[in-house]
Amino acid sequence: MKAISGIFAPLSTPFDATGAVDGLAFEENVEKYGRTGLAGLVVLGSNGEFVLLDEEEKVSLVERARRRLPRDKKIIAGTGRESLRDTLTLTRRCADAGADAALVITPNYYKTDMGEAALERYYTETADASSLPVILYNMPRNTGVNISSALAVRLSAHPNIVGIKDSSANIVQITETIADADRDFSVIAGSASFLLATLVLGGDGGTMAVANVVPDLCVELYEAFLAGNLSRAREIQFALMEINGAVTSRFGLGGMKAAMDMVGYRGGLPRPPILPASETTKSTIREIYRRLGIAPLV
Amino acid sequence: MKAISGIFAPLSTPFDATGAVDGLAFEENVEKYGRTGLAGLVVLGSNGEFVLLDEEEKVSLVERARRRLPRDKKIIAGTGRESLRDTLTLTRRCADAGADAALVITPNYYKTDMGEAALERYYTETADASSLPVILYNMPRNTGVNISSALAVRLSAHPNIVGIKDSSANIVQITETIADADRDFSVIAGSASFLLATLVLGGDGGTMAVANVVPDLCVELYEAFLAGNLSRAREIQFALMEINGAVTSRFGLGGMKAAMDMVGYRGGLPRPPILPASETTKSTIREIYRRLGIAPLV
Amino acid sequence: MKAISGIFAPLSTPFDATGAVDGLAFEENVEKYGRTGLAGLVVLGSNGEFVLLDEEEKVSLVERARRRLPRDKKIIAGTGRESLRDTLTLTRRCADAGADAALVITPNYYKTDMGEAALERYYTETADASSLPVILYNMPRNTGVNISSALAVRLSAHPNIVGIKDSSANIVQITETIADADRDFSVIAGSASFLLATLVLGGDGGTMAVANVVPDLCVELYEAFLAGNLSRAREIQFALMEINGAVTSRFGLGGMKAAMDMVGYRGGLPRPPILPASETTKSTIREIYRRLGIAPLV
Amino acid sequence: MKAISGIFAPLSTPFDATGAVDGLAFEENVEKYGRTGLAGLVVLGSNGEFVLLDEEEKVSLVERARRRLPRDKKIIAGTGRESLRDTLTLTRRCADAGADAALVITPNYYKTDMGEAALERYYTETADASSLPVILYNMPRNTGVNISSALAVRLSAHPNIVGIKDSSANIVQITETIADADRDFSVIAGSASFLLATLVLGGDGGTMAVANVVPDLCVELYEAFLAGNLSRAREIQFALMEINGAVTSRFGLGGMKAAMDMVGYRGGLPRPPILPASETTKSTIREIYRRLGIAPLV
Repeated sequence: MKAISGIFAPLSTPFDATGAVDGLAFEENVEKYGRTGLAGLVVLGSNGEFVLLDEEEKVSLVERARRRLPRDKKIIAGTGRESLRDTLTLTRRCADAGADAALVITPNYYKTDMGEAALERYYTETADASSLPVILYNMPRNTGVNISSALAVRLSAHPNIVGIKDSSANIVQITETIADADRDFSVIAGSASFLLATLVLGGDGGTMAVANVVPDLCVELYEAFLAGNLSRAREIQFALMEINGAVTSRFGLGGMKAAMDMVGYRGGLPRPPILPASETTKSTIREIYRRLGIAPLV
Repeated sequence: MKAISGIFAPLSTPFDATGAVDGLAFEENVEKYGRTGLAGLVVLGSNGEFVLLDEEEKVSLVERARRRLPRDKKIIAGTGRESLRDTLTLTRRCADAGADAALVITPNYYKTDMGEAALERYYTETADASSLPVILYNMPRNTGVNISSALAVRLSAHPNIVGIKDSSANIVQITETIADADRDFSVIAGSASFLLATLVLGGDGGTMAVANVVPDLCVELYEAFLAGNLSRAREIQFALMEINGAVTSRFGLGGMKAAMDMVGYRGGLPRPPILPASETTKSTIREIYRRLGIAPLV
Repeated sequence: MKAISGIFAPLSTPFDATGAVDGLAFEENVEKYGRTGLAGLVVLGSNGEFVLLDEEEKVSLVERARRRLPRDKKIIAGTGRESLRDTLTLTRRCADAGADAALVITPNYYKTDMGEAALERYYTETADASSLPVILYNMPRNTGVNISSALAVRLSAHPNIVGIKDSSANIVQITETIADADRDFSVIAGSASFLLATLVLGGDGGTMAVANVVPDLCVELYEAFLAGNLSRAREIQFALMEINGAVTSRFGLGGMKAAMDMVGYRGGLPRPPILPASETTKSTIREIYRRLGIAPLV
Repeated sequence: MKAISGIFAPLSTPFDATGAVDGLAFEENVEKYGRTGLAGLVVLGSNGEFVLLDEEEKVSLVERARRRLPRDKKIIAGTGRESLRDTLTLTRRCADAGADAALVITPNYYKTDMGEAALERYYTETADASSLPVILYNMPRNTGVNISSALAVRLSAHPNIVGIKDSSANIVQITETIADADRDFSVIAGSASFLLATLVLGGDGGTMAVANVVPDLCVELYEAFLAGNLSRAREIQFALMEINGAVTSRFGLGGMKAAMDMVGYRGGLPRPPILPASETTKSTIREIYRRLGIAPLV
């Protein structure tokens, strides 16, 4: 049995007009996602603006999520920071707060110092010290650092490293990782845009921005695939492309939050310096929703 | 019916020690490929060192291929050059020489001048003038120019543009193209490393370097997929990863030619300034063959 | 009069074997630099491993530096963080701790959200709120975000934005900024490798890793240039190339720290996950020192 | 004595409405440039659309240039092609046509095959066989291939390799090359935008697109530098920035040709697929000319 499988939403963090975390709005979202087919939630991922939160805010969000989410759904907490000591501290605190697994991004400011030897040592020491199972987090678009398939494969042998969330969209690398990693190592797509491709190659699920907006459509793709209904899975994959492109690549965090607001979730504002969606962006998103037959509520 | 489907080998061009094209070795290869399950051959593609050949050599290779290949197998000729006028001339001559379709790479030296408007006009004028159906050739690793899915979709409406060979390995872009292009537009993977992903998303086949070496294994993947046998297709996909990586990414053209020599094809030498495979490279390739159970003949 | 000019060393932060900041070693370095011709020090820059330090450690380093550095030398504190609120807090605390100016790096994890509008607003709000004069910090190699000359020029009009440290090595961009920015806006080279080029185009100084190792050689280049002795300036520029390349690009933070240790400063260990210099690296650095006639002490 | 020094214009090639080379317009330009302070002309460079010309056209342009240019001015011919054999042939023919030196671009379609060993062998074999002195041509923006300073330095020892035109704008690399190359090796800036920086570091001149438009302004910068008048040189450098940005980076080949037409040279049309300048582009260029006090004639 793989430790991690199925579809996860990487939770957005709603802020109010003063820039404070809106904890109640956050809990409201968690409760709603709890009633979908999602396997669980990622708290403190890239979509959760984790680098803009301080440690107390981070721990508090994990506690709130655990409180509101049914026990049979998993909470994966983003606990990676630039220094090993900070990562270890946050991982321990998130474990205490009820997380089921730790998602650990590559340290990335000192890109040229993050060669394979440094990364291998960092992940090994993190996994050695962590009471939570560790999931590697590869997000080269934001970090400028890549976890190669060779490194992922080597790390998959560590008993406390249970998977990778690969957001690189590099299907060749993802295929190599699946082909060569330990049998019980989970490979999770980091975006809806290559979910079906990842599943077909033997991946185990996905955690994708667009699941903040249309979680059950993502779950439906996953289940169609499991049921062997490739043509239905492909149909949903195509439907997800445009909304995913709009919500994530084209309009950034502000766009995703506006898109959430329109369908009944509490997106709220991003934290500065992230800009909120402009009116033009909102109109475009509304237009896309209409074209796709998703009736915006707002 | 799609104009182009199935598996194609992008023929290597063997040179002798003086740097001349070894036409007989080339014909010998063509005859062998003719006895495999390949749907056809690409002549004058990137693996054929097309930019190192002059016009007479190019036309002669198309003629030789047509002479040796059974009529039910297609010949796709790489006819793209930097200037429109040169592309039109070579396309016409390759048509006369017996090609079935023209594969037209993006002009690429003046990258910053090759915006979408320039590319759209170039392909439209090429397709207007060509007696052969035109296949777009997207090869950003070599060209530094990308044909976006939006552009491919617009060009798919042209009656004489019948498909795209996309070597970008960008599965998100490939998915968008398939989702939105004209129904009869073929989308062909440009490498074995993302063949299964492309097929699952609705693509029509592939033309891949590794088909120069193990053509029937590539065909078997394609047929397993068509037969609905995903798990067998995935198994072959995994087997193709290592040999493909070795033959194409790691060791370049010299490596591919050495790999051909070892299994009974006539790779020959590359044309300078391309370097032939070193003895170390050859040993590594032999090792990979052994590990994969492909008995090298040499 | 420009607010910032001359040569600055971006202080390294020494850690001990437990990973704790070695404050006494840090102060010892500050005192030594205080006896050189440096115009001042940058505390909490990229060479100071600032992203690996917590807020208390950061403030404490500024206090220690201020305590040990002669009053006529400036302290520039790196106060930029990912969120605006964190940047404002740290800037205020560093002002209280005795800093003379704030060096503010571009927020960078959400690269695609950091367009020019977002950056312009971020720097304007930071400068509005800061009691310290603000210096823009452009470090695309580490951040993946660039401050264009157009943006730097617009921001130079803000009364509390007094300069830019540009580490891009993009001399075209640096020239454009100097040509068009406000007359009293300082442009500072972020590496010794393009110091002379920056000065000749009208720049005001530099803050460079290599000044941690050979501060007076950097100062000598600056003074030779001011004295109109271009050929001597060029001679020193050439001498700085190799040591700079070795210390910064080739061997990373660990290499720079080892290079400091060898000439009598207290480099100490880097903080994990940054790896310390290997023995091979140390030998190579020693070799370079010898070739350049800089007698290593260790 | 360096083989190459001073300011060169990389000639544009005018085409007529049928796409044919307009040889008389070309000669008219050559005669005009002959009356400026330029040290010579580059024929068949990137600005000359060399990849869009066939061999006969190329040789003919060199002959025409030689016929019209005073003998005391040099002709540098761009003779690099993808294959070594084609480069050797074209170099020989350009020598016969009257060129004084061969400018040889890196082969670039097979980027991953163009490692340092392949490039070193290519340039060595070219220089061995060439009756003309060879100048390396580094143009990574168009080629995706870089000649490192280490490689340039090694090649500078070849008796028939006399210099490099470096268009990388990488002033660190240019400085390293100048510092370490053979004393008689010329380093030439490939764009006006870093001409002064290159000269100050010890470079020998420049060959820049903008010299097609304002040749004497480029020469004036060079002479001000030689005369030790740094502040005048800097003033001209700043003036060249905007026009250079407009003519080359922003508007491509079509823009440069329109800019030539406006000041009395014969830009003519680019050859397809290069697009001519739009009316909007022309208006912007006219506006820039006005702002800079260069009265457009058209």
